[in-house]
Parts: sequence; C-alpha cells; structure tokens
Amino acid sequence: MTDARNILFIMFDQLRWDYLSCAGHPHLHTPHIDALAAEGVRFTRAYVQSPVCGASRMSFYTGRYVHSHGASWNNVPLKVGERTMGDHLREAGMDCWLVGKTHMKADDEGMARLGIRRDTQIGARVEQCGFDIWERDDGLRAEGPAGMYDPKGAEHYNAYLRARGYDSANPWHDFANSGRREDDPEELASGWFMKNARKAAAISDEDSETPYMTTRAIEFMAQAGDDPWCLHLSYIKPHWPYIAPAPYNDMYGPQHMLPVVRDARERQEAHPVFKAFMDGRIGRAFSRDEVREAVVPAYMGLIKQCDDQMGRLFAWLKQTGRWDDTLIVVTSDHGDYLGDHWMGEKDLFHDPSVKVPLIIRDPSAQADATRGTTCEALVEGIDLAPTFLEIAGGEARPHILEGRSLLPWLRGETSEWRDYVVSEYDYSMTGAAAQLGVPARQARLFMIADVRWKFMHADGMRPQLFDLAEDPQELVDLGTSAEHAGVIALMYERLADWARRPSQRTTLSDAQAEARRGKSADVGVLIGIYDPDELPPEQTAFYRGRPRPG
Amino acid sequence: MTDARNILFIMFDQLRWDYLSCAGHPHLHTPHIDALAAEGVRFTRAYVQSPVCGASRMSFYTGRYVHSHGASWNNVPLKVGERTMGDHLREAGMDCWLVGKTHMKADDEGMARLGIRRDTQIGARVEQCGFDIWERDDGLRAEGPAGMYDPKGAEHYNAYLRARGYDSANPWHDFANSGRREDDPEELASGWFMKNARKAAAISDEDSETPYMTTRAIEFMAQAGDDPWCLHLSYIKPHWPYIAPAPYNDMYGPQHMLPVVRDARERQEAHPVFKAFMDGRIGRAFSRDEVREAVVPAYMGLIKQCDDQMGRLFAWLKQTGRWDDTLIVVTSDHGDYLGDHWMGEKDLFHDPSVKVPLIIRDPSAQADATRGTTCEALVEGIDLAPTFLEIAGGEARPHILEGRSLLPWLRGETSEWRDYVVSEYDYSMTGAAAQLGVPARQARLFMIADVRWKFMHADGMRPQLFDLAEDPQELVDLGTSAEHAGVIALMYERLADWARRPSQRTTLSDAQAEARRGKSADVGVLIGIYDPDELPPEQTAFYRGRPRPG
Repeated sequence: MTDARNILFIMFDQLRWDYLSCAGHPHLHTPHIDALAAEGVRFTRAYVQSPVCGASRMSFYTGRYVHSHGASWNNVPLKVGERTMGDHLREAGMDCWLVGKTHMKADDEGMARLGIRRDTQIGARVEQCGFDIWERDDGLRAEGPAGMYDPKGAEHYNAYLRARGYDSANPWHDFANSGRREDDPEELASGWFMKNARKAAAISDEDSETPYMTTRAIEFMAQAGDDPWCLHLSYIKPHWPYIAPAPYNDMYGPQHMLPVVRDARERQEAHPVFKAFMDGRIGRAFSRDEVREAVVPAYMGLIKQCDDQMGRLFAWLKQTGRWDDTLIVVTSDHGDYLGDHWMGEKDLFHDPSVKVPLIIRDPSAQADATRGTTCEALVEGIDLAPTFLEIAGGEARPHILEGRSLLPWLRGETSEWRDYVVSEYDYSMTGAAAQLGVPARQARLFMIADVRWKFMHADGMRPQLFDLAEDPQELVDLGTSAEHAGVIALMYERLADWARRPSQRTTLSDAQAEARRGKSADVGVLIGIYDPDELPPEQTAFYRGRPRPG
Repeated sequence: MTDARNILFIMFDQLRWDYLSCAGHPHLHTPHIDALAAEGVRFTRAYVQSPVCGASRMSFYTGRYVHSHGASWNNVPLKVGERTMGDHLREAGMDCWLVGKTHMKADDEGMARLGIRRDTQIGARVEQCGFDIWERDDGLRAEGPAGMYDPKGAEHYNAYLRARGYDSANPWHDFANSGRREDDPEELASGWFMKNARKAAAISDEDSETPYMTTRAIEFMAQAGDDPWCLHLSYIKPHWPYIAPAPYNDMYGPQHMLPVVRDARERQEAHPVFKAFMDGRIGRAFSRDEVREAVVPAYMGLIKQCDDQMGRLFAWLKQTGRWDDTLIVVTSDHGDYLGDHWMGEKDLFHDPSVKVPLIIRDPSAQADATRGTTCEALVEGIDLAPTFLEIAGGEARPHILEGRSLLPWLRGETSEWRDYVVSEYDYSMTGAAAQLGVPARQARLFMIADVRWKFMHADGMRPQLFDLAEDPQELVDLGTSAEHAGVIALMYERLADWARRPSQRTTLSDAQAEARRGKSADVGVLIGIYDPDELPPEQTAFYRGRPRPG
C-alpha cells in the first residue's frame, strides 16, 4: 500500500443509497461494490446538494453549494469564473479527466463576453466544467416534436454503435434504450415508455452503455503516464430510460423490490410543494403498482450490470497496480423515489432522493484502521472536491471550496464536524411551480438535516419536518406541530446562518484577510493620526525624514 | 427638455448626507448642488451597501449586494465574471466612461486563469470594472516604510502637477495634500497629520484635485460625439487627507460645525464591535475636540470646493445643451462620522456613515412633476445601475441586478417598493477584528433598516437596534431590550429572507426559467409515461410514427 497518487471518482446517476447489498438490500447483490466498501469506508449519511442531476453535479464539481454557484437546475449554465475540481487539482499538479456525464451547460454568453474561445485549452476547460475530455456523454439523445434535447448526447457512443453494426440514425435510442415487441421483433418498444421496462434492450451487454463507459475509462487509465491523474468516471446509468440488456432485464421481479414506503397519511394535509409533485404526472405514474413492477426490476438489473462492471474495472486496477495507488470513490448524483412517498424521480428531500451511496477506498496505510467500517458523519457532495485537493497535495481553499476534506474520516482521525447538511431545490422550471402558480424567484426549497431531524423550507409556505429517529421512513410531517416549534426555530436559525455565509469572497483567503489587519500605516495610509508623534517610533522616523519638495 | 440620452454619474467620496445646505446644513452653503436638487429629486433615505469605499462602489457598479459580488472591503478583487454597469450599458448601446476613482482591484489571478489579457479591449474593461478609462485616479499616492499603498495612485495627476511646476517626486502628497509650516515655509506639513488640516494645501485652487477632475470630465464630454454615453465622474474628495487649498482651508471654523452627536450612554454596554471601533485609534482621535476642530472645517472647505466645481460643471452643461439631455446624479460612496458616536471614518451603520446624499435630475418632461421634491423611499446604492440601464433603453435584468430602477420615483409614478434596506460590513481586515479576536469568516456585520428601525447583526454577538422615530440620533441601543424582542425577531426574519435570495443564478432569467416549465416532452424526455397512449395526441403521433431501425 502506498499513498494515493491518483483519484478514480466514479459517479452513478440516480443510484439510490439503499439499492446495494452493502447498504442492506436483501435481493440485489452487488458484491464488487460491497468489496470496495469492505476495503474502504461507507458513509451512511451522504447527502447531495440538490436532488437533481445538474445542480447536484455542479456542487460536486465546484465544491460549492447551489446557492453559491447558481447553476440551480439542469441546463442552467455554470457561470464563467466558477472553478471546479479540475481547476483546483491541476493547480496542485494533478490532471483531471472526464469519461461520461457532467450535465454541465456552458455559459456561452459569459464566454463570449470575456472573449474566451472554445478552441483554446482554457476555453475548452471552461466549456467542459474544468475537465479534460476523454469522453463526454450526458447519456440522453432524446428526440421529440421540437427537436433534440441535447444534439451532442451520446454522440461518440452512437458512432461506436453504428460501427458495431447497430444500423440507425440514433442507435442510442433504437437499440441501447429500446426493446422489441414480441408480436413484431422489428418493431421498437421504446425504453421511454415504462411498460417496456422489463423487455431486453436490443443490444448486447458488452455494447450497452455501462460496459462501454468502463472500457473508455480503462483506455484512459491504460495510456495515462506517471503523472498523477483524477479520472471522473461518470456513468449514465441506472438513470432512466429504465431498460436493461439481457440478461439484466430478467434477473429481478416484483418479489425482489424493497417494500414501497408510502402511507395514506402523506396525502392528507401534505405540504403544498410535496402535494404538487405527488399529483404531477410522474408522481401519479409511480404510484401505480404496474409502473413500479415494470421499472424497479429493470432499475435493479441496471444496477447489477453496474456492479458487474465494477468487478471488471477493479480487476483491471488490481492487475495494473492502480488499485494500490488510487483513491477510489463510488457515489451518485442523487437517488430515485421509485414510488416511495407517492413520488417518482427525485426533486424532493426524502432519503430515497437526497441521500446517496458514498464509498471511498484510500489505499494508504493510514486508512487501514477504517477499512470495512461505516461512517455516520453528516457528509455532503461538496466534500469530495476538498478531499481530492488534499490527496493532490494542494493547500485547502475554504474561501472557495465550501465542503471539507473527508480524509480525517478515512484515516480514523477525530474531526470537528458540521452539525447539519444543506440541500436545495430550484423547482422554478417544473410543472409543480406552474401548478402552484409560484413565480420563479420563490420556487426554491431548502433542506436542513441533522442526525435527528429533516426540515424543509419553501418560500412563502409552511415548513416540513420529519423526525428521523421516531419516523425513519419520513411519513409523518411535523411541520405544523406546535410541539416541534423549538426544533423548527432551530432549523430556521441554521438556515439563516448558512444563507449568510460569505460564499463569494473567493478572491481573498481568510488568512490573507487576517494578515492585512492594521497594515495600512505601513504603506502610508495614516488615518486618525493628529500629530506625527502619535505614530510608532519606526514609522515616525520614516515620516519625519521625508524630503522637502523642490 | 428631451429624454435623457446621456448619464452623468457624479460620486463624491466620503461626503456625509447632511453636509449640504439642501439637506439642512446651516453653515455650509452648497448652492450648486442645491440647485440640482431644486430641479430634481433628493432622496432622503439613500443607503450604501457597505460603509467603506471599495465594497460600496463595487455594489454601485455591479448593482449587486456585497454578499453577491464578494468584493467585501477595499482591495478585495472583484472576481472575473461579475458584470458592472459598463457591461450592461454597452449592451444597451450606451458607452460608459470613467473619470476618477473606482477603488476597483482587478482579479489578476482570475484573469490569468481565463487567459484574459489586459492589452485587449475585453481585458482592459475587466481590469477597470467595466469602464472605459478617460482617467483613473483612486486618489491616494500614499507612501510608507513598506512602500506605496497604490503605485498607480494619482499617476496622471502627478504628471500634470509636475508639468505645472510642482517639483517633487510625489506632488500629490507634497503639494496637493500638504501645507507648509509657518516657522519654515519650505517644510512640509503633511495632510496625513490632522493637526495640519486647517493649513492651506501648497497648491492653487485650480490645480487641486477637484478642479482637475472637473476639467478632465469636461474634456471627455466636449469630445463625445452623438452616441449616448454614461460618464462616471468620481471625485476623490472630500475624502481624507483632510486639507484644502486656499481659500477653502479658511472658510469655516469650529463654530460652523454641526453639533457633535454623541452621548456617554453609548460607551456603556456598547455593542462589542461598536466598542472596538470607538476604542481604536481612529475612534479615539475623533473623540478629541482638537481633532474635530481641525478636521471638520477642512472637510467643509473641501465640500465647498466640490460645490463650486459643480457650479462650473453645470454651467458648462447648460452652455452646451447637455443639461437638457443628460440624467445627472450626485451621490457619495459613504459618509464620515467626524466624531459623531465617538467614531471617525465610516465602517459602521449610524446615519453619518451609511446614509448618503442622492440627488437625481432627469431632464425629461415626465419628471417635471417631481422637480424640487424629496423622496423618502428606502433606496440603495444598487438602485443606480438598473436606473441607468432603463435610461439606456435596456431590458431589466433582475436576475443579475439586485437593485430597482428609481425612474418611477423621478416620474411621480407609484411603485411597489422594498420594505427595508441592507448594508454589510466585512471587518475582517480591521484592527477591530484583531482586538476582538474574531476570525475572518465571522467578522461580518449586516444592517437591516426600515423607516422606523435600524438593526445590526454581528456573527456570534448580540444584535444592535435603534428606534429612528424615538431616537433619530441613534444614541440608545435597544439590542438587549426585551420589550423589542418582536422587532428584533422581525429583523432577523428579514435578514434570513434576504440572505437566501437567489443572487447567483445570473445565467438564466426568471422569464427563461418559467418558459421552460413542462417542456421536456417536446424534446423527447418522456418521464413518467407508462404507455404512449398517455401522451397528448400531438406527441403520441410523433412517437408512434417513429421509424424502425435498420
């Protein structure tokens, strides 16, 4: 074992924290991820900064809260000037590469305003969230009546598929994310429609997305030289479309699902935002048993495939020695309700949505004491960037990076730690906001959670509160409970403290600020001096010795 | 009268709101500024976003709170990517030029990181706070044992003075800001030492800083063509060094000062931060009568000179027709305690420090109804940028510019308006923080003021509260009054609301956000659809008509 020289930052997309056998899933066996946990630390209270891809990822990459970086939902451009882990790591001498998804929308207007061209190295990195690109694939080549969701979606992957004989204008959709109808094997059964979820995608396992990305990551690492690197291997699964290739499509059935967590009480006097999401198309769909019974087994199959690919990847790492000099992280950008709480997708702050798996294996001997343990500290997505910066040997930058390095937890050191985590959700671009008639500026949710309580503030509405000790399934909303007024007041105080934090003074560190105290007289700014004699002697000499003019 | 085509944005530095005869000063007659007020609107509750030059100005220029732009004190670089009025106005077709001071510290590191070169037009504007430079002069060429405060301070002005025969390496100091000793006319009596304040600066009126800047502004306007312009004429006076050329040095005496506003009660159980400032060198100095009696008459002389220059400038504007097509603003970046509240300088939130003069003359006929009136609305420094953008014909940008256009007030229109103003102060770089032992991240103050109450929050300390109705001089701190717990709670609620505001989603407007609602299916992202039949008919047709692959 040596110290970590490299970082392999693996992110799955929409992977629930509890759909892993190491996290207790009784039917979904994920031996490879479990093995990583057995040699590392599994964080049991890891929260993302926003339960939606784009905002969550921008927080992982910048190490900053959504309220700080402003890219508050999918396809909100990350403004020029926000630095990401790539910028920080390179300054510390570590390269930073991408294979897969970032969901980063470039700030075209800001780049143009500042004259930053995409065909320069600087511009390419600004455009790509600070990463150097081995492969960028956001994983959605969706097409609708108004055109494509992302004209670059699955661009290289589609070319690969066509070269492999999948003959179509959009094999990402027509093969990798569609099955075939039994009555007509040539007819598409699109993975967009959940009734098709248990069909086999019309693609071989090895050509499907997760193995493809694994191959691309191995290609990167195989050619990487001796210079330290961070690779963000960012899978686009088990995110929808929910459809898996054989044999994964057929490994699980309804009998293997975790029991649905929902209660009729949740629908009574529901918080208005929660109600709007429950009542929306997605919430209604996932409240139907036929939807869950189609989707969840497919989702489990996709995860099983992910785990198998972890086996392949870890075997390669061991074979090449990278296992012993690489910090390995497995996490996700958010979870998936899968019908729990009458919800589908993510968006709100129940655990299935906002809590994620987080497993870190640090190869250094200092981490031996914690191998195979779990850590119950309240950690956040923004903690990874400062963790990686410490691995790279860079100086901490708490005036920019709002998270905290997790290395103390990996190395069994005690650490004064945060009392609560924060997550946010900008629902201004959702149908729920339209239904509620909430203007964009007010369509914002904030979660404050500690080990006991989970609180949500919605501008202009009552709060929501769950007692995680008495009600770990988060079924009883105490937001209007007079008995809990004290807890709610504490949560509001924390939210206020947090919101006031100085997140934008990123051009001057605290140490630099403190070093300036009382230094103005040294450079001749003499405020509040009536007579030169009032100066300290060493300064008096300077000013008294001043030459006369002319 | 025509609509305003141009904007003349005049800022004085450290000009108290009440040292003007139009604001009630009984001895300091400022007929030219008064005349502007008589033809415009004088705002009686204009607050700056921070009572310190750099942070206040960055808020004026960006139209954003300090908590949003992050340049929280003098010489904290304004980060690359923050836009200023220059950027907004140019996009609306109006040039934006500078004569004088901005106190802007460029983000050298950010510019280098993004490859923005100073020798390009884009880079020069980023470096110069978005202004095109006719003359930049921050007005301090201070020199001390550790070197110069600002090696570029008064660069051009010093060259001008040398060409005019003021023979010295630093005529800014040796002539413009120093007198001579009576016992030895060749010996410097530096304006840095307040005992010299009533001496005549060793310079003619016409060569001193305020007339020089006026000349430079007239030169700019004289050569400006027909394209609309905004000129920021940013004087460096009446800011210290407190010393004025003849005859202004000798126009006023102690008998002309406003009575000092201070009370022994203020020293009893003072708020800890207030106490630290009172007890600091500057507070102690300005608590001495000899200091006030030296400084205030000089300060008044400097203001009188400013007013005389306004006379010269306004005459020129009238002569050339610019008076009738130019919106004219007179304001200041903050005030000056001048011994009130046992304080000197600025830094805290009593009116002498945080309230500023604000007079706007709009030449358009729509503004005729308000000429010569005062407006008591709660206005903020950040309101000017959106006002100017409206004058320039640009679309409002509330997702970037946090202030509100003042044009409705100028045009006698009713306007739903804010209930409170916010000001901030980062004292992390001051001796007060050192004395209190407060770490940089906690050394932050927030003011919330409405028409009745002024509240200050200091991290980790009790609040401060003044009742402006019962105690307009702000002598009785109610921060610990149980009777006022309700007011204090309301102020904390406002502070929390404000702090949560979405200030960083500057890459997407509210209208753009709202337009996205429910549009994902149009581009093929079909979430929550079990069967194609569940789609709206126009979409079903699209998906059903999908060609088979291969």
